[in-house]
Amino acid sequence: MLNHDLLITNATLLANPADGHLQEKAYLAIANGAIAGIGKMDDLPVRLEAERIIDASGKLVLPGLVNCHSHGAMTLFRGLADDLELMIWLNEHIFPAEGRLVDAHMVYWCSKLAAAEMIMGGTTTVADAYFHEDAAARAYCEAGMRTVAAQGIIDFPAPGVPDPTHNIQAAAEFITAWQGKNPLLTPALFCHSPYTCSPETLQRAKKLARETGSLFFIHLAETHDEATRIKEQHGHTPVSLLHDLGLLDEKTICVHCVWLEEGDIELLRKTGAKVVTCPESNMKLGSGIAPLAELLGVGVVVGLGTDGCASNNDLDLFQEMGSCARLHKVAAHEPTRLPGLTLLNMATDMGAEVLGLAGQTGRLAVGLRADCIIIDHQQPHLTPFHNPETLVYAGRVSDVSTVIIDGRVVMQDKRILSFDLDETLDEVRKLAKRVRAGG
Amino acid sequence: MLNHDLLITNATLLANPADGHLQEKAYLAIANGAIAGIGKMDDLPVRLEAERIIDASGKLVLPGLVNCHSHGAMTLFRGLADDLELMIWLNEHIFPAEGRLVDAHMVYWCSKLAAAEMIMGGTTTVADAYFHEDAAARAYCEAGMRTVAAQGIIDFPAPGVPDPTHNIQAAAEFITAWQGKNPLLTPALFCHSPYTCSPETLQRAKKLARETGSLFFIHLAETHDEATRIKEQHGHTPVSLLHDLGLLDEKTICVHCVWLEEGDIELLRKTGAKVVTCPESNMKLGSGIAPLAELLGVGVVVGLGTDGCASNNDLDLFQEMGSCARLHKVAAHEPTRLPGLTLLNMATDMGAEVLGLAGQTGRLAVGLRADCIIIDHQQPHLTPFHNPETLVYAGRVSDVSTVIIDGRVVMQDKRILSFDLDETLDEVRKLAKRVRAGG
Repeated sequence: MLNHDLLITNATLLANPADGHLQEKAYLAIANGAIAGIGKMDDLPVRLEAERIIDASGKLVLPGLVNCHSHGAMTLFRGLADDLELMIWLNEHIFPAEGRLVDAHMVYWCSKLAAAEMIMGGTTTVADAYFHEDAAARAYCEAGMRTVAAQGIIDFPAPGVPDPTHNIQAAAEFITAWQGKNPLLTPALFCHSPYTCSPETLQRAKKLARETGSLFFIHLAETHDEATRIKEQHGHTPVSLLHDLGLLDEKTICVHCVWLEEGDIELLRKTGAKVVTCPESNMKLGSGIAPLAELLGVGVVVGLGTDGCASNNDLDLFQEMGSCARLHKVAAHEPTRLPGLTLLNMATDMGAEVLGLAGQTGRLAVGLRADCIIIDHQQPHLTPFHNPETLVYAGRVSDVSTVIIDGRVVMQDKRILSFDLDETLDEVRKLAKRVRAGG
Repeated sequence: MLNHDLLITNATLLANPADGHLQEKAYLAIANGAIAGIGKMDDLPVRLEAERIIDASGKLVLPGLVNCHSHGAMTLFRGLADDLELMIWLNEHIFPAEGRLVDAHMVYWCSKLAAAEMIMGGTTTVADAYFHEDAAARAYCEAGMRTVAAQGIIDFPAPGVPDPTHNIQAAAEFITAWQGKNPLLTPALFCHSPYTCSPETLQRAKKLARETGSLFFIHLAETHDEATRIKEQHGHTPVSLLHDLGLLDEKTICVHCVWLEEGDIELLRKTGAKVVTCPESNMKLGSGIAPLAELLGVGVVVGLGTDGCASNNDLDLFQEMGSCARLHKVAAHEPTRLPGLTLLNMATDMGAEVLGLAGQTGRLAVGLRADCIIIDHQQPHLTPFHNPETLVYAGRVSDVSTVIIDGRVVMQDKRILSFDLDETLDEVRKLAKRVRAGG
């Protein structure tokens, strides 16, 4: 009786990374894309049969990681301009390159490259935000990733939206086109920032988000310069500006939140707004250090994001976990800050909660969608493996051998099965030549 | 005419990482463990033949990385006790575990595991410092690594030196036993710190170092607590205490140097003392941030170290480069700080200079020893590869495919050839069971 699609046997299970509990010699059964059973091998129902069995002897199985903020298509600009002042970086390198090169073709292929990098690194869910997001959505769907795809909104001519007065309309069309189209994809909105979107634009976008039940992402309080400018213009901190405009609620996701003042954390807490931190990007750009311990301390839900490859320069959530924990320890001179399990939680279950996917992904439990990864922890750099925190402080994306999303094996033994990786690499390399060619 | 032992063809060469220059379609010829020729494939001498050829088409070849500070045997304590206050971590976990478990057998196998991890991550030279260093030296020699092995000196009963009044004598015996024994191994001394070694011990050790022409390592100014304590006891900063005792010279290597005061940097500069920074360890333990830009700015020679696995928790110099660059950018709110090429320099050529090996390793040039690594940069997370800084911000140890040390291929296509990795893993796992068994 083949009553299951996939059965993972003999695994060491880390079903809920936040609690750090390792269950030895366990099985995980998957049917119709969902987790249908979890238990000890000894208790494996005799009648449980499956079309396919993966023996995970000597391996760890845990929920797939959740990347709460990225601009996948920016893989093309990886390492294009490192070690520069933020405004020189943006105005002389990134914006001109984007203006010259970003179209639907570029967004499709470079997002697909991002999908490859993320899948290979154990990320099963991504919140992506860019322009031509329709092309990104197609790429992620073809890659088989669970995706929140957010169409960019900005008050300047942008790729795909040359007339900024149409920016809300373009976003509305994106939402309409994708809502209910693919069970793995949730369309959303991404207002670039409070300094590139007027209060009217922000309010119109949030109105659209509310009408369509969509998530509303925004870069917020990323740099000291931004915080200063917003205060001068509006007499508010970036967070209190959003609150004043009526934009903060449980479906508003504030990315960065580095420069918060007294009162901002309370506004985020009481409105239920979510926060995403991108520590490596904030570090590389010299932006600053978000008050994560304080946010987490009052119960704000915080996810982890890699940001885009122009400022990171990769999409590596393992390294992001380690960097985040270490950064906050040294900044506070306090080694107990942000313990390893907190990072594992942010990268899985709490990340899913940020994206409104808490009932679907982020942990391994019967009834949740089957998003899980298999890790080979028998390697030199993970030996001995005294506890799961070792994944945060010594784990690497290259330790991931197999990735399952919504019950589908998208990578096995480090080979991507859901799409043609070589074709993607070839297409991106062609585009990269154009990056170098254009001064 | 087989006039060369090994010829690497069709490589993209990064001969001197500090200058960032990539030479396409190049060859590297190796004879008798040294680099015998470098050039363009077009200029490859017709008569140049080699016993063995490695085709590096589509791959990068660069000097092997130099880890300037580690305690290899502490791989056994990887992840044993994370996220704890420093003194609780040391006194309740690390010291008791060391007291119970460290013997020559443990040091041999756990150093060998460290060698495996380092070789697999492209590290070809290590400066190791521990007790029972004779066993560590044997392990590294068998692994085929270029090694500076420093015997630990401390004014307490230590593994292998139960009577601390014999600590200098034990170190002297170690130096005598190893000087001139193996061309890849340089014996040295490691005084644990100015708070665990008396001024007399420090001076006796440095006298021995001078008499034998050896390097003198010391943990210095690592924590605020140490700096405060030394000041109370001696009326000096840790650096000025060492200077006052006559210990600072070009063969003294000060590890950490986090808590420096005005005048300390000038003392290090004018004496020619070397500095090693271990940013990830300093971050994880919450110790602080070394003034690297200031040190480098006045010309102090600074190397990069991973420290031991109890506080890092791996021996990954790629991640160490990225973490170091990002940490200093965010700490200064200055994205131009510690550019990528500076990190590549610290991890190769400048690291070799710290260890007195500048004429031997750290770059690829005719006459130097042949320590080089081959990196596969055709992977998703390194695509596009616009410039060598990408190695710092997105490179991973798992990108290293082949490692050559002193002309010997110690790893090829990710398989260690110089020793039996599985045997090593088995032995360390047996020891790890004893770690867990002992409360």
